[in-house]
Amino acid sequence: MTSKQVKARFGAVRTTAGAVRPVSGARITGGLLHDWQRRNGTATIPHTIERLRAAGNLTNLSRLLEPDPAPYRGLYPFLDTDLYKTLEGLAYELGDGDEQPREFYEEVVGLLERVQAEDGYLNSFFQDPAAARKPWQDPAWGHELYNLGHLIQAAVAANRRMGDDRLLRVAVRFADLVVRRFGEEGLCGHPEVEMALVELFRETGERRYLIQAGRFVDRRGTGRLKHSIFPGDYFQDHVPFRELPSVTGHAVRMAYLAAGAADVFLETGDRTLFDALERLWDDMVASKLYITGGLGSRHSDEAIGDRYELPPERAYSETCAAIAVMQWAWRMFLATGGAKYLDAFERVLYNAYAVGLSRDGRAFFYDNPLQRRPDHEQRSGAEAGGEPLRRAWFGCACCPPNIVRWMAQLADYVAAERDGAVLIANYAAARIETAAVALAVETAYPWDGDVRVTVERAPEEAYGLVLRVPGWAANVTAAVNGEPCAAEPDGDWLTLERRWAAGDEVRLHFPMPVRAHGSHPYLDATRGTVSLARGPLVYCVEQRDSPLASVDDLVIGVPDIAAAGVERRDDAVVLRVEAAAAPPVSAELYPEYPGPPEQPRTRAGTTFVPYFLWGNGDPGAMRVWVRTS
Amino acid sequence: MTSKQVKARFGAVRTTAGAVRPVSGARITGGLLHDWQRRNGTATIPHTIERLRAAGNLTNLSRLLEPDPAPYRGLYPFLDTDLYKTLEGLAYELGDGDEQPREFYEEVVGLLERVQAEDGYLNSFFQDPAAARKPWQDPAWGHELYNLGHLIQAAVAANRRMGDDRLLRVAVRFADLVVRRFGEEGLCGHPEVEMALVELFRETGERRYLIQAGRFVDRRGTGRLKHSIFPGDYFQDHVPFRELPSVTGHAVRMAYLAAGAADVFLETGDRTLFDALERLWDDMVASKLYITGGLGSRHSDEAIGDRYELPPERAYSETCAAIAVMQWAWRMFLATGGAKYLDAFERVLYNAYAVGLSRDGRAFFYDNPLQRRPDHEQRSGAEAGGEPLRRAWFGCACCPPNIVRWMAQLADYVAAERDGAVLIANYAAARIETAAVALAVETAYPWDGDVRVTVERAPEEAYGLVLRVPGWAANVTAAVNGEPCAAEPDGDWLTLERRWAAGDEVRLHFPMPVRAHGSHPYLDATRGTVSLARGPLVYCVEQRDSPLASVDDLVIGVPDIAAAGVERRDDAVVLRVEAAAAPPVSAELYPEYPGPPEQPRTRAGTTFVPYFLWGNGDPGAMRVWVRTS
Repeated sequence: MTSKQVKARFGAVRTTAGAVRPVSGARITGGLLHDWQRRNGTATIPHTIERLRAAGNLTNLSRLLEPDPAPYRGLYPFLDTDLYKTLEGLAYELGDGDEQPREFYEEVVGLLERVQAEDGYLNSFFQDPAAARKPWQDPAWGHELYNLGHLIQAAVAANRRMGDDRLLRVAVRFADLVVRRFGEEGLCGHPEVEMALVELFRETGERRYLIQAGRFVDRRGTGRLKHSIFPGDYFQDHVPFRELPSVTGHAVRMAYLAAGAADVFLETGDRTLFDALERLWDDMVASKLYITGGLGSRHSDEAIGDRYELPPERAYSETCAAIAVMQWAWRMFLATGGAKYLDAFERVLYNAYAVGLSRDGRAFFYDNPLQRRPDHEQRSGAEAGGEPLRRAWFGCACCPPNIVRWMAQLADYVAAERDGAVLIANYAAARIETAAVALAVETAYPWDGDVRVTVERAPEEAYGLVLRVPGWAANVTAAVNGEPCAAEPDGDWLTLERRWAAGDEVRLHFPMPVRAHGSHPYLDATRGTVSLARGPLVYCVEQRDSPLASVDDLVIGVPDIAAAGVERRDDAVVLRVEAAAAPPVSAELYPEYPGPPEQPRTRAGTTFVPYFLWGNGDPGAMRVWVRTS
Repeated sequence: MTSKQVKARFGAVRTTAGAVRPVSGARITGGLLHDWQRRNGTATIPHTIERLRAAGNLTNLSRLLEPDPAPYRGLYPFLDTDLYKTLEGLAYELGDGDEQPREFYEEVVGLLERVQAEDGYLNSFFQDPAAARKPWQDPAWGHELYNLGHLIQAAVAANRRMGDDRLLRVAVRFADLVVRRFGEEGLCGHPEVEMALVELFRETGERRYLIQAGRFVDRRGTGRLKHSIFPGDYFQDHVPFRELPSVTGHAVRMAYLAAGAADVFLETGDRTLFDALERLWDDMVASKLYITGGLGSRHSDEAIGDRYELPPERAYSETCAAIAVMQWAWRMFLATGGAKYLDAFERVLYNAYAVGLSRDGRAFFYDNPLQRRPDHEQRSGAEAGGEPLRRAWFGCACCPPNIVRWMAQLADYVAAERDGAVLIANYAAARIETAAVALAVETAYPWDGDVRVTVERAPEEAYGLVLRVPGWAANVTAAVNGEPCAAEPDGDWLTLERRWAAGDEVRLHFPMPVRAHGSHPYLDATRGTVSLARGPLVYCVEQRDSPLASVDDLVIGVPDIAAAGVERRDDAVVLRVEAAAAPPVSAELYPEYPGPPEQPRTRAGTTFVPYFLWGNGDPGAMRVWVRTS
């Protein structure tokens, strides 16, 4: 592979500064993530294209070429972004030479080129000449810069991965209009353009985009955004970013904004921004993330909620928020090299994000609760309907194409480098290629904790191979060419620096016992319960896997956790747990305390499945958090 | 008092059948409920009138008399009902001879008479000739029959309590239009008219209103109501009423509907309706009411939620839903004579309802959570704003005038009668007058459990004095003229049947120890916590009353409950509780389980106040449910 080829494979983030840098070439070659990517190509992308066609996302554009355009289809002014996110995902697939529907890509790119206004403006909701609405009239709800953001991200992906700059030219025209128009004043109710403008700066070298991104971050927080329903904190416009006491308001907006601010920090080195970012991140991890990594507990306003307000049964935990948290986490990792951000990334990836897609890749959760009541009729997202569990599409379909683009770019998050070292950030069977080294990683992670890294190419001089030790791991062992080496990690990393030769082999073993996690005493809704986990996976129990007792009656004691067995079922590792069954001694909702003594309990054999696999088929009730008494 | 005068004092419900009947004359003469009524007259009603004037509710009507009407003010098509509920409250006040602003009453009644359309239609949102909207086009959201319902209830109150039939004539004209138009088909997205039409039947003797009410109940449940956002169950239109498995959807709609269905049952004796009502009631009490009696846990869609989905921190528990549950409870009591309905009534009255109003009577909660986080910025109802805690008014101001009318009619719920007996249903210092007896009740209930009932007039023959024993009471003692009598109650009632003479005195003593209540094990968010109570009052702790420890760190053990002291503070009885303080041993959100051993705990003296008094002043954090470990 030539150096030019390596360069062409940069992913969604290509920083020019920071403690570590993304690598230019990585590819996932096997295992769970590879299965996910294959499913993305063979099921989710074709399904998404079919649904985009059916929902009118394409005709919303093509109608603008007609003399008498049909009305816009859909309620929201951001439906073009469903196309952009799909294009972004397709750019990865097409760039990798996968047989993806190039026809769709060409059709949409062609439409966008033709529909874009003279001045660069592009948004099929507002461009309709017959509609009363006009561009730039509704900063709070218009989503016009949010649209631009996703356009830029698709355009950068197409340019980087496919060498196709047509979309980039469209994006640059729109971005230049925005820089002219928003130089002095104005912002958008839905952050997203900040990340994108920084990436456009990275791709083009044009500093004005970076400056504009910084302005958008700095301008928030003075109550400019007015909306009849949503309060200022919904838009993160009630307090300047650097003064936010905690992540707040609409979860997706908050995390996109933070990711964009991290990008601005990465390229400007503005420490005041970083200080706020680190404080907000640490506060979020300490008080506002579900154990799945999900962000945002409230259906109302899709809001994050107060500290420790994390009830499993009504977790909103939007799939898009999961992606946004990973975007933020990755940028914080690039800025600092800190493994704590990767621990969160991994937690989100395998749990809050992965659960958003069905096993067959054709149905989606918008919100991702951690509990299902026996009498619950599932609804998903803002819209209701009789449809059970994951749904094939949504009127507000932000999540499905977001899943598509993220699945397609997972290889970008496997490794990073710094001068004299390569870092393995997330474990997957992969080939990692940088200017300095080529590595082959073999592992069945997250199903087991054995990892083999084979050096295929290395520099002459001593070079660092820096291996992440996940936060959940203990008693890690490592060997180089069969020789046990000091497995005691250096903080969260195992650093092996030496002169490597092709064929050198590093073996790592992360033991994966069944773990149980309690929760902070301020987290009311999980008091007196535990969540089972193994490796990075959170587990849950569905009613169909607890034939002898209601999942609400299951009680797991400390010996039950120690005795839990692990077995393979279908393509997953499941847990066999012998629990007690403790039916209520009284039907009263609020019995006097203390109540009557406990009844003798029966035993109930149960199977816990990875949380991300729940709800494929009819699960009945489901619990992540199970009682301990 | 002549028999005619007694008749004139019937309240909001005047059944013609059922196990027990409302009494024709009762008056609250002292104690807490009397204080509430005085505050209603001197503070809440003047405040409400001022706010109604400021919000445009009157000009929405008067503008229709102009040749070129100004636009309707407000977003909702039901703002006339704020006037109707206020008129209903005023009718009680004016009927009792209180010095209430008769001017306002006269002004509104006069306006309604003049604004009503030729055909009887009346709704200032839809009558606007300049507005594009037309009557009867939006059954799901138009609220037109909901409007009629509140008009009827105000009209009946004015006729019964003041002998003023002007509003009744207006209501009858509108009701007749509705009976003509909705004879064969149609219904309203917001139930309320059902209760009102039955009452109109009771007031006028015209059976067509009763029949129409029954039709509205029977017609629900076939998906007629279509709305772009809300699902069928929001309107209770997804399943026929008799087949509803559980109270569901929008809480206020559900409880108004059930109260209306109970009225239809009361007058028709349709057992299939009663069977559904009893089943729904029992299921609600067993799985869907907060310990405060609040109904509805979700902000999203203001919905009731699944069984056992009752997190304190996000309890929606709308004040209007509290009133609706009391209306339903009272009708179930009239139908059956069952005390269980009164236990719920009382629980709601002193907790979920009373908390909706500030101590000064001029500020309101729309939603009534049972917990406040230290970092919580309070918002109320669907609307957000920076205003702390209770607010002076709302854009959707359904709750304040609902509080007004309910405060004004509390005397209606003190007693009931059946052949040969009078029943004391709720304890308050009161004078109870029926054709058969006159009683004076003296008590400081709910602050203490001593009740003295003095017979002022009684029939010659043996007559029953039937005294409710609240569900929370134990070790009750009773004496007649100083002689202890068998205090063992007959189920939930203490029945004293004998020949009474004027001057006879019954004394009751309900001991009021501090109680603690746990919760059903399916109620996740209160697991491992207790709620303190005394008599019918639920208590809570505000941060300002826990100077030594965060309310989130407080731990109450069984001995602490036994040692709790009772003392008077201002006008309330508060609890002195010596608790332990158990700060978190780790800042981790999800520590491994089992965790490190507990740290030694310090002690923290705290004061618990009645829940309905929380949030007057700056409470900081607040908890109803406090940890037990």
